[in-house]
Amino acid sequence: MRALVCAEGLRYEPDYPDPQPTTGEALIRVVIAGICNTDVELLRGYMGFRGVLGHEFVGIVEASGDPGLTGRRVVGEINAPCGRCATCRAGRTSHCPNRTTLGIAGRDGAFADFLTLPVGLLHEVPGTISDRSAVFAEPLAAALEILEQASVRPTDRVVVVGDGKLGLLVAQVLALTGCDLTAIGRHRRKLEILRQRGIRVLLAEDAPQAGSVDIVVDCVGHPDGFALARRLLRPRGTLVLKSTYHGSASVDLTSLVVDEITVVGSRCGPFAPALRLLAAREVDVEPLIDGIFPLEQGVAAFEQATSRGALKVLLSLQ
Amino acid sequence: MRALVCAEGLRYEPDYPDPQPTTGEALIRVVIAGICNTDVELLRGYMGFRGVLGHEFVGIVEASGDPGLTGRRVVGEINAPCGRCATCRAGRTSHCPNRTTLGIAGRDGAFADFLTLPVGLLHEVPGTISDRSAVFAEPLAAALEILEQASVRPTDRVVVVGDGKLGLLVAQVLALTGCDLTAIGRHRRKLEILRQRGIRVLLAEDAPQAGSVDIVVDCVGHPDGFALARRLLRPRGTLVLKSTYHGSASVDLTSLVVDEITVVGSRCGPFAPALRLLAAREVDVEPLIDGIFPLEQGVAAFEQATSRGALKVLLSLQ
Repeated sequence: MRALVCAEGLRYEPDYPDPQPTTGEALIRVVIAGICNTDVELLRGYMGFRGVLGHEFVGIVEASGDPGLTGRRVVGEINAPCGRCATCRAGRTSHCPNRTTLGIAGRDGAFADFLTLPVGLLHEVPGTISDRSAVFAEPLAAALEILEQASVRPTDRVVVVGDGKLGLLVAQVLALTGCDLTAIGRHRRKLEILRQRGIRVLLAEDAPQAGSVDIVVDCVGHPDGFALARRLLRPRGTLVLKSTYHGSASVDLTSLVVDEITVVGSRCGPFAPALRLLAAREVDVEPLIDGIFPLEQGVAAFEQATSRGALKVLLSLQ
Repeated sequence: MRALVCAEGLRYEPDYPDPQPTTGEALIRVVIAGICNTDVELLRGYMGFRGVLGHEFVGIVEASGDPGLTGRRVVGEINAPCGRCATCRAGRTSHCPNRTTLGIAGRDGAFADFLTLPVGLLHEVPGTISDRSAVFAEPLAAALEILEQASVRPTDRVVVVGDGKLGLLVAQVLALTGCDLTAIGRHRRKLEILRQRGIRVLLAEDAPQAGSVDIVVDCVGHPDGFALARRLLRPRGTLVLKSTYHGSASVDLTSLVVDEITVVGSRCGPFAPALRLLAAREVDVEPLIDGIFPLEQGVAAFEQATSRGALKVLLSLQ
């Protein structure tokens, strides 16, 4: 099959071996897939991954132990747990220490004609959701994870820092709570997508008063985001971390104690509500699409995805 | 009056000016006071404080606007808020940006014959609690603040890292929840105080398996504590920060995202439950007392308080 492989850099392979589903897994033909900042970080050495990249996809089930699944259009959660360890038994399967993660750790990903995933991770896509919208189910689920972990009240003053792909999804999801929301970024074009949905936006240099915000979500993708988020937060406020990147940051832990700040790391989230919001058109994802490339032009697609100010770049497998 | 003053180093002054209570404040004659690690940090330049040190005390009300208070034996909360700003109106008075803090910021403290505090911050000490126990009300309240902020369930695996004064109080308070508790420290003598109360103790080199603990409380007082606490924590675990010290730490924020860790900064706490636990003898504080010095020997008292392995050193004003 065709595949985009992370090895020494990114490589298009026209004849990569097909994946073989094991018991309980489905074989899925990929229709469309999205490039995430994590893919770019993986190419820079994050996680030491080698194999087919890609973890945001829409596909058609080709084969599985459940014949009723065949032919269904699906999206999929990306963490495949062992199901037997103490972490899995405690219900935290997405944190299973033995897990593989689609296109990130121990499992080939979605930038290829086929992938395999355990059937329990698949979610059928309602017919009213386009492929181009459904491919956002995974990052939209990650945005919703914030509301799984932190209580956002309608009267809260909330700031999303970072106007990248994830920041734009997070801001749209948080706006649905009715909270007093501001999105802060560096790109007028990206902020305009939010402004058109009635969300208050600010350029970073116009950031609100220090110490005035109840909840800040850091979607910046480098340590500067934490510093800005921390500065905006009121005492006893909550700082939600969504950025993953290589390396450590210098943090004034004593100031977290004195101001009794809560910091919440937040990663993958629930797919079912993501699909519900897409079906209800409560979140508008297609304006985030900057380009669609055939898989063969995957290297060019990554060039666009990493260009300054770029938003979502998709890979079409059809 | 007599006073121990933080100026260029620590100085005993036999003739420091008496404090003058303003409207709504009580004048309190100090009976006994406790030296906290924060006092030591203040002498090292933390907060840039100049004035009478001391924020843990038991005293007798000499005068106040409320004649019913006169002669009462009291302990006192240490943050005196403005009562008018947005933070105060939101009920977070201990985080008032205009606050003064007894013996820490903008207000002379308890290592003196007299101090002043707003009457609303005072708590009468039940007659069944000795002075030597009641002087622990402030740090015991700080230990209880953990349970105001984080939900500790009886089935949780909990570790307290650090066997200093605060760590020993935190461990005793958390043991009352019935949780599966381990205290980790470096001093056999200090850990023995907990072991005698039936609390499981471990020397730091025997720390439990990485990634196995639901909640870790860092009471170490320097950045190493954060690193050990982080290592012990399971995915989606909670790290409670109680240590304040000068300087920053290098933190792997991405690992907090990947493991969805919650970090909770925790400072001053509620006095009423602290006094209830002392009255019920559910917490045993007097074994933590290493020495009692008259105020005139305050410099020697600080020498003992900062000696390796020391626990609580008290100053007697009588």
